Amino acid sequence: MSASHPVDVFDLGPEHEQVVFANDPGTGLKAVIAIHSTALGPALGGTRFHPYASTADAVADVLNLSRGMSYKAALAGLDLGGGKAVIIGDPRTAKSEPLLRAYGRHVQSLGGRYYTACDVGTNSSDMDVIARECSYVTGRTVAHGGAGDSSVLTAYGVFQGMRAAATVAWGGPSLEGRTVGVAGVGKVGHHLVRHLVEAGASVVVTDVDPAAVELVRSELPAVRVVESAEALVAGGLDVYAPCALGGALTDEVVEVLSARIVCGAANNQLAHPGIEKMLEERGILYAPDYCVNAGGLIQVADELEGFSFERAQQRAAAIFDTTLMVFELAASEGVPPAIAADRLAERRMREVSRLRGMWVPTR
Amino acid sequence: MSASHPVDVFDLGPEHEQVVFANDPGTGLKAVIAIHSTALGPALGGTRFHPYASTADAVADVLNLSRGMSYKAALAGLDLGGGKAVIIGDPRTAKSEPLLRAYGRHVQSLGGRYYTACDVGTNSSDMDVIARECSYVTGRTVAHGGAGDSSVLTAYGVFQGMRAAATVAWGGPSLEGRTVGVAGVGKVGHHLVRHLVEAGASVVVTDVDPAAVELVRSELPAVRVVESAEALVAGGLDVYAPCALGGALTDEVVEVLSARIVCGAANNQLAHPGIEKMLEERGILYAPDYCVNAGGLIQVADELEGFSFERAQQRAAAIFDTTLMVFELAASEGVPPAIAADRLAERRMREVSRLRGMWVPTR
Repeated sequence: MSASHPVDVFDLGPEHEQVVFANDPGTGLKAVIAIHSTALGPALGGTRFHPYASTADAVADVLNLSRGMSYKAALAGLDLGGGKAVIIGDPRTAKSEPLLRAYGRHVQSLGGRYYTACDVGTNSSDMDVIARECSYVTGRTVAHGGAGDSSVLTAYGVFQGMRAAATVAWGGPSLEGRTVGVAGVGKVGHHLVRHLVEAGASVVVTDVDPAAVELVRSELPAVRVVESAEALVAGGLDVYAPCALGGALTDEVVEVLSARIVCGAANNQLAHPGIEKMLEERGILYAPDYCVNAGGLIQVADELEGFSFERAQQRAAAIFDTTLMVFELAASEGVPPAIAADRLAERRMREVSRLRGMWVPTR
Repeated sequence: MSASHPVDVFDLGPEHEQVVFANDPGTGLKAVIAIHSTALGPALGGTRFHPYASTADAVADVLNLSRGMSYKAALAGLDLGGGKAVIIGDPRTAKSEPLLRAYGRHVQSLGGRYYTACDVGTNSSDMDVIARECSYVTGRTVAHGGAGDSSVLTAYGVFQGMRAAATVAWGGPSLEGRTVGVAGVGKVGHHLVRHLVEAGASVVVTDVDPAAVELVRSELPAVRVVESAEALVAGGLDVYAPCALGGALTDEVVEVLSARIVCGAANNQLAHPGIEKMLEERGILYAPDYCVNAGGLIQVADELEGFSFERAQQRAAAIFDTTLMVFELAASEGVPPAIAADRLAERRMREVSRLRGMWVPTR
């Protein structure tokens, strides 16, 4: 990911539709907006505000993240393409009303081909500021029609994905009596644990932050705690749910993992390409990360129609069916589920965008 | 200009507003659209179609050219900013209807912040194709409201700039009896020679293309011909008009030049920064290239209002006044005219864009 020398945008993003460098010396704004695909509709993705070491690092990150958004939105059945933006700088010192508004004017200049949202380093209040210059903003504060905390439906979607995996692994969606290990009990992990306890599962958790663990235990005393992700993975689990940083599924973890299912909220769980094959060889059913963690995207995307929690929750519930479809395609095409998910996403992008080739009167 | 390694867009274009990488693998389109400034209005500039050796070369060229367009439009008094685009590829083999239309969709996606036009490697017919996907196209064919051959008003504007220089050098605008050397008698140079002959000047020409010289001689037999630009410069001239490639004013040329005035149609006449001072030290009055050659831009820009040759010609005639203003500012601020032109352009961009800070009801 790190690129200390400048990069060739066309080489690094050979399938990206458009990459926009937005500059405003007056406010210090340096942003890169990447539109990977608008095959299914306008590109949606958050704005990451981060002190990248170089423009090249920022470009590499935004190209990679925007591509992921295309696949996530496509598989979630949304009429949205994939995009992402990065603002180069330390949000604690560089963020200002003028800078965010300058950024908003640049997003506005793209005429709705890119919708922004929160990401690392930006929050709903920032989105409200950006929206003062721009019509294409989601992740707003609740007072401005925002969907609020997106961890609620992210966790709900992961829970649905896990039930789908249980259906394939054990013949039914029930998690009752199953031992589920949750690594990371921040906001999403905490909500997930609640769903699991309500479903009658036996839950074991771990987190580098003792306060997060304490919060879960005070609400749900039956939950067991172990001291590390290593200890969690080494113990006897039916399901492993990585809900912290990316790269949780390393060679070492997959080798010792006793779980029949991996299904969690973290992004980019596979530490490197090829891990999906190792998982399969060990008989572990992997529910692809971007398939099951799309609830948050579904939630902010719902703002575009005027947020309805019920409608968004219905859509997040459909992650159950989508995950089943991924497993079915994996079985029928003889590929790991991670590959099957990509194929389903690519198929939807290809087939739906092809339909635009048919001329119809303007709707 | 050449950059074999990838370049950092923010480093190379620290004052550019927006740089857009447009990619379409299906048609092979790789384009870079640079918007240097919209301080005075939407950015206008041609699309160059050229087989750049690298993306970095293309980026360096488009950043440089778009900056030049901001200054040219500002000094010409137009309500337009500066932009430019490059398409990477050999126009003889890579140009196709789908590729041009894919490019048109990208230009359309910018919502009118960038207007395109012809440049090296593209022509009016190409603009018609681009316009089938895009509302922001000038330089169209005459059948589609285009202004036609822009060399007419380019030459007219250079002639007006030369008359302004004569006013400063000799107390009046007349060029009667003056010896004017025109290097390069392609379309613009040819029109310029006609204006000069009609004004009673004694004209000497040269061109690497014998056919171009013959065309001038057959229409205007009184014109003298010399065999090279070196011979032209070495001879006795009152005015030297570079109308061919850029970089005509090298150290060597300036050292031997006998002319009192330099005023021509070529772009980027100064071979390197500092030449403007050498010219001044030798007592040569230099009419800045982008000030006097703005007639072509004025002509295509007029298409935006529905082309009127009379109105465009009136605006090109005003190059006389603008050139005088440049010389006056140069005298009052004690700087060479090239520097004075930049200052006038920057002043207009700054002052007019500041006015947008005053809120008014939408017009």
